[in-house]
Amino acid sequence: MAQAAYYEGNRRIRHGAGELVEPASGEARLKISHCGICGTDLHIFHGAMDARVRMPLVMGHEMSATVHKVGSGVADFAVGDKVVVMPLAPCGDCPACAAGHSHICHNLNFLGIDTPGAFQSYWTVPAYTLHRMPDHLSLKHGALIEPLAVAVHDARLSGVKAGDQVVVLGGGPIGMLVALVARAAGAEVLVSEINPYRVDLANRLGLDAVNPTEVDLTKLVMQRTKGAGADIVFEVSGSQAGASVMTELLRTRGLAVVVAIFAQQPKIDLFRFFWRELRMQGVRVYESEDFSAAIELAAQGTLPLDELITDIRPLQALQSGFEDMDKGGQVMKILLEL
Amino acid sequence: MAQAAYYEGNRRIRHGAGELVEPASGEARLKISHCGICGTDLHIFHGAMDARVRMPLVMGHEMSATVHKVGSGVADFAVGDKVVVMPLAPCGDCPACAAGHSHICHNLNFLGIDTPGAFQSYWTVPAYTLHRMPDHLSLKHGALIEPLAVAVHDARLSGVKAGDQVVVLGGGPIGMLVALVARAAGAEVLVSEINPYRVDLANRLGLDAVNPTEVDLTKLVMQRTKGAGADIVFEVSGSQAGASVMTELLRTRGLAVVVAIFAQQPKIDLFRFFWRELRMQGVRVYESEDFSAAIELAAQGTLPLDELITDIRPLQALQSGFEDMDKGGQVMKILLEL
Repeated sequence: MAQAAYYEGNRRIRHGAGELVEPASGEARLKISHCGICGTDLHIFHGAMDARVRMPLVMGHEMSATVHKVGSGVADFAVGDKVVVMPLAPCGDCPACAAGHSHICHNLNFLGIDTPGAFQSYWTVPAYTLHRMPDHLSLKHGALIEPLAVAVHDARLSGVKAGDQVVVLGGGPIGMLVALVARAAGAEVLVSEINPYRVDLANRLGLDAVNPTEVDLTKLVMQRTKGAGADIVFEVSGSQAGASVMTELLRTRGLAVVVAIFAQQPKIDLFRFFWRELRMQGVRVYESEDFSAAIELAAQGTLPLDELITDIRPLQALQSGFEDMDKGGQVMKILLEL
Repeated sequence: MAQAAYYEGNRRIRHGAGELVEPASGEARLKISHCGICGTDLHIFHGAMDARVRMPLVMGHEMSATVHKVGSGVADFAVGDKVVVMPLAPCGDCPACAAGHSHICHNLNFLGIDTPGAFQSYWTVPAYTLHRMPDHLSLKHGALIEPLAVAVHDARLSGVKAGDQVVVLGGGPIGMLVALVARAAGAEVLVSEINPYRVDLANRLGLDAVNPTEVDLTKLVMQRTKGAGADIVFEVSGSQAGASVMTELLRTRGLAVVVAIFAQQPKIDLFRFFWRELRMQGVRVYESEDFSAAIELAAQGTLPLDELITDIRPLQALQSGFEDMDKGGQVMKILLEL
């Protein structure tokens, strides 16, 4: 029985019957296996994006699936293939697309936000969004590919390399994945996070993690770097505190990477940018090569992906999942299994 | 008769007798020809750097000179050589120096700020700070090499290239030189400046220049770039208005270059950095290669350097020069001739 979870506004999810949309030419219909709840989904649930989304909305974009049916002209995928979706449909026509930055297309259709997503049994998508999963990568871990691709993209654009001193401000799912990817690249990584559960989890994953309300982060980073400062700081907290400390932590010509989605404009120490010739780079979503690299990295089996999955629940639990995320505390990534 | 201008605090310059300091080993004594008044000198005159400088202070670092005497071990320069000074004396020992960024040494001695400068007849400096001027480059133009090297450095770190769409926010001496260097690199340059005298001067130099209080700068840039946005924005205004508009003007992955010295921390649209994957780069002073490139560029004779020189006055006029700069209005660069 096909099911779906519909956001209807006002922090309400309705569980109901799902549709089987016939795949047109160049499309594929997927049978969803797992779908994680993203911070952006929570943002939508809060009503913060009601002006952008059309209700009722099926959210969900951190997913894994098997191919259920292919439309005409789809030669690269067959029924039963294990896949993940890179949920970006660019216009192909704007200045960003023309410049080769179609992942941040000016008119981007983000599947699961601007059009229906994966919190449903069957999902019909353009076949060009599909990435094949290796057989030995589990569908459960497949649902982490999309956030992992964010981290891979962020790390790639940062140019992080072996031996770099890296600080990650904010240890939520994306911050944690950025830290793990940077460590996999050979960097020495310090995570700064104010939630004790997440600090403990990071330490259990073998990352150095501290609570900046308990230790002097700048002093610690200067000790670790012999007074030079960090090569790269990933700002994943979205807070004024993070935006303020990032410029203190960086070495001459060090790089601040803006991963977080800032709801307010923070004050930034542009004098410090001048004084130390600091650099900053905004990063958003991923490109196809990042999805491929994320799949490859996950398939290696070296990342502690299971430890990031707080819970796996049925689709009916989407509403309670949001509510648990709102409580904060002991949550990292909640997956829904269909 | 050797003379010198001494800053004694409280917006006061005392004109008095100068010294002839004997060049030690590795040093050279220069006979100063011309020395421009820099915005940083004005900042010192205002008392804003009294905590850093030792009074009485001989300021001045935008200079040209001939070699008057060389100390032992100085083989590359001889009496009578026309030279300019790159006024940076790094410690050689800090993390910035170790990383190859000695121009922004953590313990930098900036000649003319931290130790005596060129507002005097004779100036004794380390010989490694000297750059030779070609014979056909005038000593008057030589006094513009230091600010030109700032602009060359800023342009080099920005990676500006032919065909780039560039906006320069702030059309003072450094903004104007940045605009001219970017144009020399083949970029299409728009200068935004609120002082009508400077807008007119920029237009006389063949630069496109507008007053953002009279035209909608963002709209204009979008028209010029067919909706894409600028490749590079140089922020030389040091204002919240400049810091706010720079993120609006940039294309996807466009670069904001922080040239200005911000006295206050402005609010910055980090959401826009994320959304468009913008980049930012702080830039400060210059490296030796920038000084060499600035000399070469000036020697080509294609830059309208004479038009940037508002007035040439005797050293005794330093106090009145500061006062004229304070009035704003019709001033670009004032040179003192010794």
